[in-house]
Amino acid sequence: MLLRMSNLFLRTLREDPADAEVPSHKLLVRAGYVRRAAPGVYSWLPLGKIVLENVSRVVREEMNAMGGQEVLLPALLPKEYYEVTGRWEEYGDTLFRLKDRKGGDYLLGPTHEELFTLLVKGEYSSYKDFPVVLYQIQEKFRDEARPRAGILRGREFHMKDSYSFDIDDEGLQESYDRHRAAYIRIFDRLGLEYVIVSATSGAMGGSASEEFLAVAPTGEDTFVRSTGSGYAANVEAVRVPVPEASDPGAVPEARVHHTPGTATIHTLVDFLNGADLGRDFTEADTLKNVLVKTRVPGSDDWELLAIGLPGDREVDFKRLEASLEPAEVAIVDEADFAANPFLVKGYIGPKALIDNKVRYLVDPRVATGTAWVTGADEADHHVIDLVAGRDFTPDGTIDVAEVRDGDPSPDGQGTLYTARGIEIGHIFQLGRKYADAFQVDALGPDGKPRRITMGSYGIGVSRAVAAIIEQSHDDKGIVWPREVAPADVHVVGTGKGNEVEEALRIGGELEARGLRVLVDDRKAAPGVKFNDAELLGIPTTVIVGRGLKEGLVELRDRASGERSDVAVEEIVDRTVAACGS
Amino acid sequence: MLLRMSNLFLRTLREDPADAEVPSHKLLVRAGYVRRAAPGVYSWLPLGKIVLENVSRVVREEMNAMGGQEVLLPALLPKEYYEVTGRWEEYGDTLFRLKDRKGGDYLLGPTHEELFTLLVKGEYSSYKDFPVVLYQIQEKFRDEARPRAGILRGREFHMKDSYSFDIDDEGLQESYDRHRAAYIRIFDRLGLEYVIVSATSGAMGGSASEEFLAVAPTGEDTFVRSTGSGYAANVEAVRVPVPEASDPGAVPEARVHHTPGTATIHTLVDFLNGADLGRDFTEADTLKNVLVKTRVPGSDDWELLAIGLPGDREVDFKRLEASLEPAEVAIVDEADFAANPFLVKGYIGPKALIDNKVRYLVDPRVATGTAWVTGADEADHHVIDLVAGRDFTPDGTIDVAEVRDGDPSPDGQGTLYTARGIEIGHIFQLGRKYADAFQVDALGPDGKPRRITMGSYGIGVSRAVAAIIEQSHDDKGIVWPREVAPADVHVVGTGKGNEVEEALRIGGELEARGLRVLVDDRKAAPGVKFNDAELLGIPTTVIVGRGLKEGLVELRDRASGERSDVAVEEIVDRTVAACGS
Repeated sequence: MLLRMSNLFLRTLREDPADAEVPSHKLLVRAGYVRRAAPGVYSWLPLGKIVLENVSRVVREEMNAMGGQEVLLPALLPKEYYEVTGRWEEYGDTLFRLKDRKGGDYLLGPTHEELFTLLVKGEYSSYKDFPVVLYQIQEKFRDEARPRAGILRGREFHMKDSYSFDIDDEGLQESYDRHRAAYIRIFDRLGLEYVIVSATSGAMGGSASEEFLAVAPTGEDTFVRSTGSGYAANVEAVRVPVPEASDPGAVPEARVHHTPGTATIHTLVDFLNGADLGRDFTEADTLKNVLVKTRVPGSDDWELLAIGLPGDREVDFKRLEASLEPAEVAIVDEADFAANPFLVKGYIGPKALIDNKVRYLVDPRVATGTAWVTGADEADHHVIDLVAGRDFTPDGTIDVAEVRDGDPSPDGQGTLYTARGIEIGHIFQLGRKYADAFQVDALGPDGKPRRITMGSYGIGVSRAVAAIIEQSHDDKGIVWPREVAPADVHVVGTGKGNEVEEALRIGGELEARGLRVLVDDRKAAPGVKFNDAELLGIPTTVIVGRGLKEGLVELRDRASGERSDVAVEEIVDRTVAACGS
Repeated sequence: MLLRMSNLFLRTLREDPADAEVPSHKLLVRAGYVRRAAPGVYSWLPLGKIVLENVSRVVREEMNAMGGQEVLLPALLPKEYYEVTGRWEEYGDTLFRLKDRKGGDYLLGPTHEELFTLLVKGEYSSYKDFPVVLYQIQEKFRDEARPRAGILRGREFHMKDSYSFDIDDEGLQESYDRHRAAYIRIFDRLGLEYVIVSATSGAMGGSASEEFLAVAPTGEDTFVRSTGSGYAANVEAVRVPVPEASDPGAVPEARVHHTPGTATIHTLVDFLNGADLGRDFTEADTLKNVLVKTRVPGSDDWELLAIGLPGDREVDFKRLEASLEPAEVAIVDEADFAANPFLVKGYIGPKALIDNKVRYLVDPRVATGTAWVTGADEADHHVIDLVAGRDFTPDGTIDVAEVRDGDPSPDGQGTLYTARGIEIGHIFQLGRKYADAFQVDALGPDGKPRRITMGSYGIGVSRAVAAIIEQSHDDKGIVWPREVAPADVHVVGTGKGNEVEEALRIGGELEARGLRVLVDDRKAAPGVKFNDAELLGIPTTVIVGRGLKEGLVELRDRASGERSDVAVEEIVDRTVAACGS
């Protein structure tokens, strides 16, 4: 491949686009890789198309290597299949819906579980047919509420989605593990720095699910990592180490104190430390009881839930939702307090909760044997030295307190800190949800039907392009990893003599040696060409310029910035070596 | 590439699908290449995906070779651009329209002229930038009234669309010619038998446009070819040779005859031949005057138009529409006759038309000097020996009579006959229509803005797959041309010994020699395997079966049916030779 910039459909821009905030968006537009067609909808220009194709090729090769079979399903899908699974409604406004000329309802596929399930149901019927992994690389459509950051979160985007079909749980686990290994190879080849985080705890009987997050400060996803190990997890999936039960031993008997005007933790701690109680108190010594209400699917009734946690922590609502799923959770309001007069706002304690049969779950730090200052269920009163397991027994534990930088890592090594990432991959054990919806059975070796089990696995192909740039750029432009770069080498000819001609000759020889070459043969000032070369970000640059008279050209490495003068007759060999092929 | 049928996601069917009428639809479904997802919407299974990719590859290679640059535009397009050109309305029900969550209007791209025009406008501004040819291979969406014939006319389909941008007419002609040459190479490589027909006459000032039609009796398009030359044309584009003006010489003076009850051509000819006029008459001796009405764009008023043509011909409405474009044309009704009492139904003649200033155009066969029997503008009366140019002078000629098998070919060689074809490609000189709509100018060498000129060029990539099968199949299945076949060779192992093992070994060696190999390593009866091999249609088959004991395997050619026994140790070389690589 040899591209000439003199006729390449490419115009670079000096200014960042007005609507761009993140580096990948700015650079993809400035370097002429993409153009915006509508909010969240982009056109891929020639060099961008090559990059997109390179990422797709890596994905395809690794999916084929792990035994996946490539297919291609339509984007235009009939409503009926998505009604069976309830997703026609569940997707809400995110689904693009449309009608055909006969009034039939259709949607634009946001993901294809339904169709793949039906496809396999149509072809396969015996346990001998399984396992099978099918995948496609295809445009997906999601009507995001706030399309943002260019191709990082678009409304029409490119995705690899695959689906595994197995006859039993062990098979599913194997298909899942093979996907996980393939994803590691793919993201390694794409040169991405990423973490694999548990997407859900699995504590509530949910199936295994992991996300691949490309580490980037511009990412939309928050996760925690450890300073002392490779531990990384979604905030929802962090499990606080459960302390062993301790002996309250010398803890005095619990006693109620008059603590006027202490409805907040802060005023309470101030009061305690001024009350001459013989010791110092911190917010972490207080037990805060937070009320919410929950509702199980299919029920009309809300049930109160009290969460007891150290006063220096807040409940993380996202963790709470993940923990209670599939139950709904909501904030309590005045009507709830009015209906339950035993709840004394600011002074709620375990006693009233337990006496009135409110479900009461506590943070793992509220372990048996720990002593707390907490509400005495009476205005302006708190109880001191109330010991868990001695003076009250909660209904269980719930791990939904906010995770903070500096918290000990669940694996015991180092402490946690918060980082941000871009979701580039997701692997998910669906189990039998879709097979149940469409009644997909295979005849077992015993002649009896067996419900099959499924996994679904996604890679954001266009998003990966953006994620690579988020991780690999500098103030001058993009720094492509070689595997995805639109070319191996960028040969720049500058000067009024035969430099451009010589650049084309060298480019031709490099192409003959199997490299993908871009030659800047434009009539433009050297500065313009150098800036464009850095902006475009091709890994290796050859400058054919002033030195040519002395028989020298320059070899540059985009990533390291390293430059060296090379004799013209050696440049082809040296470049081939630099490109590592 | 080596695929094993034991785990390939492929199930062949014994029966034709109930909704299939044409061979390609039946065979693509039976052989497991595609599956229907919705009316006119198909999924491509693994082998089908490979075939689709092979066709795309051929298209891509030739488009790159002719200087095209590949890009990828979105399918989801905002209404605004299509409103500028009026196509938001013009497309009617064929356009899939939808709204996003904010109520914004969108469409699914049926073709992308608008976006490409804007893309080029955004990047290019000087005459030095041109010419440029951009293309994409992408899903297109059209809500066909009657999706039919499987992927031959689908609602979501794969298309290569390209667009040329030039600074002047000569440039456009060159871009057009390069596309034409590339299309010839593409369709030749795809092994298609096709004709290139003029899509419109160009007579009405329209720009050049040609269609590539794959010859197939199942095609939706009718065209005419010559028995004596390579001439082929759309019926709309056939130009009847214009006879030279002749001298009426001995033709007697025109005279009116009383011809009672002769309101039809048939009754008239019968009457004349029974009236002892001294000669025989045929329908071709009569001049029929057909009335229609036309309306120019932007006008509210219909204008009468009379068409005079030999009585043995009908007006071809499609030819008439093409000839009058962009004016509309409609059938006259009773109200029109009532408003123009000089029109005597069944007896309309040139005189009343000309006297009453009705626009009067005649078939080229009604040449100056020819004599006719025609209506005398009075019930039950005809005029005989009315000579064109002597007794009446029409306003001009119009070439809209039906074209019939046996008509002389316009190129003077042989006669015409009707054939059917599948439109697989269309090349079209758009001219400045879109550049005018979006005001796309480039600064000329003189510093003045010049309006650019465009061409648009399509290839139905998925349709080509079907067209290939329509031309290349037999009663046992598909017969793929090698360039598009899902594999070069199909190695079938049958038997209870080591035949399957040996088939896999041979397959592996063939793969090492660079062939794309499909091995039938299933546990199935030989008959099932042989039938499937013929159904799937891979060009070369190697049968490893009964003969293996004697050291023989069989080499079969799918197209010719030729079979030969080959020694096992020679089969790899022989197969490589047979595959011609």
